[in-house]
Amino acid sequence: MIEKGLFPVKPTPVQYLGKLPKGQEIFMKRDDLLGFSFGGNKARIGAAFLQDMEKKGKDFMVSYGSCGSNLNRTMALLCKSRNIPCLIIVSGQEAGGQTFNRQIAADTGARQVLCGKDGVAAAVEQVMEELKGQGYKPYYLYGDARGMGNEEAARSAYMGAYEEIRRWQQESGVRLTHIFHASGTGMTQGGLVAGKELAGGQEEIIGISVARDAERGISAVRRYAGEGAGAIRFETDYRCGGYGLYDRDIQEVIREMMNCHGIALDPTYTGKGYSGMVKWLARYGDGSERVLFIHTGGLPLYFDYLRGL
Amino acid sequence: MIEKGLFPVKPTPVQYLGKLPKGQEIFMKRDDLLGFSFGGNKARIGAAFLQDMEKKGKDFMVSYGSCGSNLNRTMALLCKSRNIPCLIIVSGQEAGGQTFNRQIAADTGARQVLCGKDGVAAAVEQVMEELKGQGYKPYYLYGDARGMGNEEAARSAYMGAYEEIRRWQQESGVRLTHIFHASGTGMTQGGLVAGKELAGGQEEIIGISVARDAERGISAVRRYAGEGAGAIRFETDYRCGGYGLYDRDIQEVIREMMNCHGIALDPTYTGKGYSGMVKWLARYGDGSERVLFIHTGGLPLYFDYLRGL
Repeated sequence: MIEKGLFPVKPTPVQYLGKLPKGQEIFMKRDDLLGFSFGGNKARIGAAFLQDMEKKGKDFMVSYGSCGSNLNRTMALLCKSRNIPCLIIVSGQEAGGQTFNRQIAADTGARQVLCGKDGVAAAVEQVMEELKGQGYKPYYLYGDARGMGNEEAARSAYMGAYEEIRRWQQESGVRLTHIFHASGTGMTQGGLVAGKELAGGQEEIIGISVARDAERGISAVRRYAGEGAGAIRFETDYRCGGYGLYDRDIQEVIREMMNCHGIALDPTYTGKGYSGMVKWLARYGDGSERVLFIHTGGLPLYFDYLRGL
Repeated sequence: MIEKGLFPVKPTPVQYLGKLPKGQEIFMKRDDLLGFSFGGNKARIGAAFLQDMEKKGKDFMVSYGSCGSNLNRTMALLCKSRNIPCLIIVSGQEAGGQTFNRQIAADTGARQVLCGKDGVAAAVEQVMEELKGQGYKPYYLYGDARGMGNEEAARSAYMGAYEEIRRWQQESGVRLTHIFHASGTGMTQGGLVAGKELAGGQEEIIGISVARDAERGISAVRRYAGEGAGAIRFETDYRCGGYGLYDRDIQEVIREMMNCHGIALDPTYTGKGYSGMVKWLARYGDGSERVLFIHTGGLPLYFDYLRGL
């Protein structure tokens, strides 16, 4: 069989990592191995946005993210690989400076528009008007300037991943009690929750917040999950002060994951999510849990982290 | 099925990349996706050395490589993940300085011994004597101080990969005419050649030299391939002046591979190998070739390259 298309490794493998001190069994779903642009949740989600864009007859992709954004890098590459013009709006560059994600995105030739954290909506509106004036039919992947409207497309990506997880449980005989991941925009968690609802799954899906407070985080997850979603589990106790900030525990998790399993985590997303999961399980678990952690990618951020040490 | 063990993705997928201007079809075997320590040929070969070490009743791993060495990084991580003590001998640090590979290796706690390019044998002898004096039974992965003796272990790794390629051809119906890869120590090419001999394969296996001249390169490949190997195809026209050196064509190949396929190559190995392959096929091919390029990993070198731009 010839593996064509964007993702040579799909469904992604689930790997047994071992037991925590209390006895919980930990598995990892290796979405970092999807095989396009270092994989990750934004590879799945980005591919869904591209499909949605084509369906809607648009011809110019507009993405948005921070200067370390995995989404911007992935969208720039997905578009470049298909000869679709792409523009990325970048916020927070005053803080983060140059990152590998931004460098890789720039190398695609995608135009970058800088803005402040409070100027995103204005930047989106201005860019969309400008592109329309040039005769394009631009697609802003979050929907309107306030970031609403394309929830269905985003949702479909991790509904698909949930379906992979469901099948893996059937095939392996492992019955998961919990699914953890680093939760940021809500797109990944929303899709997982929607997939679980559809399939009648019983796992607790727990997002470890990488930045947002409970109100904003839960509202975003609920929006992406769509109607019918039950209680949203969005844990905000492990944020270390905010987006991109981390502590020694997260550093230790990153070191241990590389040293024990040869797997790269980063301090902004996967390392923070994994560290939060371990603390949550120590605090609330009784040891009987069978837990899946989803590795949502972001490899360039691991090398940013190494560079900064 | 629970994926235990070191390599969650094995056999590695083969991906269709497209056609060259003359018409050759190009496929890539994604050994970069093996899933331990960024995958790569040294993950396969390192696992084979560990098995050999256990078989021989040794208890301390001694590795050697340049300061950008994928092998040293992989051995340090493989050993750390199994609680096997490891020491790495590092040459060429005066030229290359700090690299991500060396940084990751150092983070395992493996002791590093520095030496000059001409002092490797002496460093190996000294280290082995010292470790024996401490009561260890050390295993130098290349064999004796001159780097001979463990050819069989190294060979087995890419004999296994060749077998994966053979099966893929059976399943896909694609009959490959050529198998290309970046050829350095000769371990990868030797294993491929031995695997082909064993299976009676008909593909041309062509190593693009990343540094060595024909005499030294062919002699090493022949040694790793073992008895019965036919003619060795080791192309030395694409070395760009030597180990770690590269030109604009290689840079362009690296950019294009990321932009078209979201796949990272590096200038020292995979980018040089791919660039050499494309030139070789333009020069000697008639367009009818069906070609496999093996992505032999080395992802940290891609980020070293980005950092240096």
